[in-house]
Amino acid sequence: MKRVFNFSAGPAQLPLDVLIRAQEELLSYQNIGMSIMEISHRSIHFKKVIERVEELMRELLQIPDNYKVLFIQGGASLQFSMVPLNLFKENKHASYVHSGSWSKKAIAEASKFGDIHIIASSEEQQFTYFPSFQVHQLNENTNYLHITTNNTIEGTRFTCTEELPKNGIPVVADMSSNILSEELDVSQYGLIYAGAQKNLGIAGLTIVIIREDLVGNTGVDCPTMLNYETYAKAESLYNTPPTFSIYMTMLVLEWLKELGGIPEIAKRNIEKAKIFYDFLDTSSFFSSNVKKADRSLMNIPFTTVSKELNSLFIQIAEQEGFYALKGHRSVGGMRASLYNAMPLDAVLELVAFMKQFEEKYA
Amino acid sequence: MKRVFNFSAGPAQLPLDVLIRAQEELLSYQNIGMSIMEISHRSIHFKKVIERVEELMRELLQIPDNYKVLFIQGGASLQFSMVPLNLFKENKHASYVHSGSWSKKAIAEASKFGDIHIIASSEEQQFTYFPSFQVHQLNENTNYLHITTNNTIEGTRFTCTEELPKNGIPVVADMSSNILSEELDVSQYGLIYAGAQKNLGIAGLTIVIIREDLVGNTGVDCPTMLNYETYAKAESLYNTPPTFSIYMTMLVLEWLKELGGIPEIAKRNIEKAKIFYDFLDTSSFFSSNVKKADRSLMNIPFTTVSKELNSLFIQIAEQEGFYALKGHRSVGGMRASLYNAMPLDAVLELVAFMKQFEEKYA
Repeated sequence: MKRVFNFSAGPAQLPLDVLIRAQEELLSYQNIGMSIMEISHRSIHFKKVIERVEELMRELLQIPDNYKVLFIQGGASLQFSMVPLNLFKENKHASYVHSGSWSKKAIAEASKFGDIHIIASSEEQQFTYFPSFQVHQLNENTNYLHITTNNTIEGTRFTCTEELPKNGIPVVADMSSNILSEELDVSQYGLIYAGAQKNLGIAGLTIVIIREDLVGNTGVDCPTMLNYETYAKAESLYNTPPTFSIYMTMLVLEWLKELGGIPEIAKRNIEKAKIFYDFLDTSSFFSSNVKKADRSLMNIPFTTVSKELNSLFIQIAEQEGFYALKGHRSVGGMRASLYNAMPLDAVLELVAFMKQFEEKYA
Repeated sequence: MKRVFNFSAGPAQLPLDVLIRAQEELLSYQNIGMSIMEISHRSIHFKKVIERVEELMRELLQIPDNYKVLFIQGGASLQFSMVPLNLFKENKHASYVHSGSWSKKAIAEASKFGDIHIIASSEEQQFTYFPSFQVHQLNENTNYLHITTNNTIEGTRFTCTEELPKNGIPVVADMSSNILSEELDVSQYGLIYAGAQKNLGIAGLTIVIIREDLVGNTGVDCPTMLNYETYAKAESLYNTPPTFSIYMTMLVLEWLKELGGIPEIAKRNIEKAKIFYDFLDTSSFFSSNVKKADRSLMNIPFTTVSKELNSLFIQIAEQEGFYALKGHRSVGGMRASLYNAMPLDAVLELVAFMKQFEEKYA
């Protein structure tokens, strides 16, 4: 069983130990004679799984007691609707930081339901930096402030947490591509959401961390499955949840806890990204166009000196076992995603390969 | 690796061959060096998977060309909202057949968005039969007729397909617990939906088969992820779909095709159910309270002569390796779910065990 170096932006690489454990017990979960996929979401075995995932999330992220952890389907794209439908008050006004392709979709969706004010944008520079904003720019009647803390496609991240409002306006954060990758103070946010297919597990599950006072304020005509209260009241078992995806998240979180939790993975992620960016910055052949201070630790877009050499690089890289390095179609070039499951060795191997490529084609 | 007899109503038993194949290639799908869980939904490998699932669905169910096959998340419960949001016309009027706990939820949800007329109900008899209805009862301005073709909890099914309207009113059918289990003429329906965790695969995926003219008629304020057009236009790849669940459905459909498709599985399902019902009808200890003509082939609720003996039966059955036989809390007693993946042998073993139990405790 040969495995390749997989730099996919998501669904992304999983820790090998996690896959092996899933494989080992695929036909009989904990020797019960049934697969975890084959048991009722109301069975004692599955209830222990979902409770364990919540417990691990709370422990790893030190989630305060006045927050709920919800397990939802539909991806971040469904959250783009659920956030306004649940958090809008009568005046239906929200503020968004526009930092990339995903915030664009979030803004377009929320605009269906109310007035959206873009308080900062980096669109005029193709989102190559994270736009700064200041709390005093916020309309005091705005219902929430939405930010995308890591921009998967453009390779930027939000770092200035001291800019977040402390005046009671809830901050909503799309953390799909950087949750669990770095230190996080949950209490600075009203709501955090993340699709699982990058750092949390596999596609089909979205985790929402929400402050309790923000639950239960939708209109009566909100679809039941779009109301956070449905999940909060039923402990995410109102209907059948994506049981196998939740199980995979349990394995990923246990793996993360085992290796030392957020402090350890944050250190490793900084180290991996530094090796990669240091190489890009010393190379005269490969480069990044993202503002240094705003560079993502998770997703690193880069290019060679020409489109032709980009294509050649992607092609030869794949032959050498470095997969999914093609950049997003809206940005072009290449992108290396270095999520939690990416081992340091793989980054070192990729950089070594890039050096060779540079020597040959520069 | 000991496996038990698993009679779960869902998430339900999978064919052992399917689990074994998934296990074999869990670390490297088709020798690509990555798990199917770890690859982009836009990769060529995954695109082939989702296309193959659609192809197999079309082949097995002989779906006409003017129908779309959509892959959605959120379960049947989300369909309870999506159906009215997409199919309501200006007058917002729909007709529902009320045949059990799930139609109750579907009706409650649709009532948020328009006027719902219950054209037939078996609630006064605890849903122990499938309520008959006639087309002339339908308001000619009703936007659609909704039926639940198999009632998972109460153990009834809809058989009178000749009662379905032919006057252009679209029929919407929740087939979550009987899709692919018996012959079906898709052209009689405007829209069919089914959660995957019974006959189609695992939790986290809902398949919708919809006639093309019913797509694209929502209001502008419909959440993007609740609009069938989003899925139809993007071939269900607008955002990351539940990739592993879709893959598992491919394996299940290939298994079903291999064994002979719907004609063969329908024959087997009739045989399995007949063995079970024949035993119930000859036993003076075990019984079913469902009207004979309306009995489900998939879900068979039954009881002994007392609550105490029900509990004892469930307990001893589990010790003997017959799992998940406890009835739904709203009905009590026991329930055996005999989905496609349930082998005839398991039914014979269960009946033999029930005979022994009867001899000992009657």
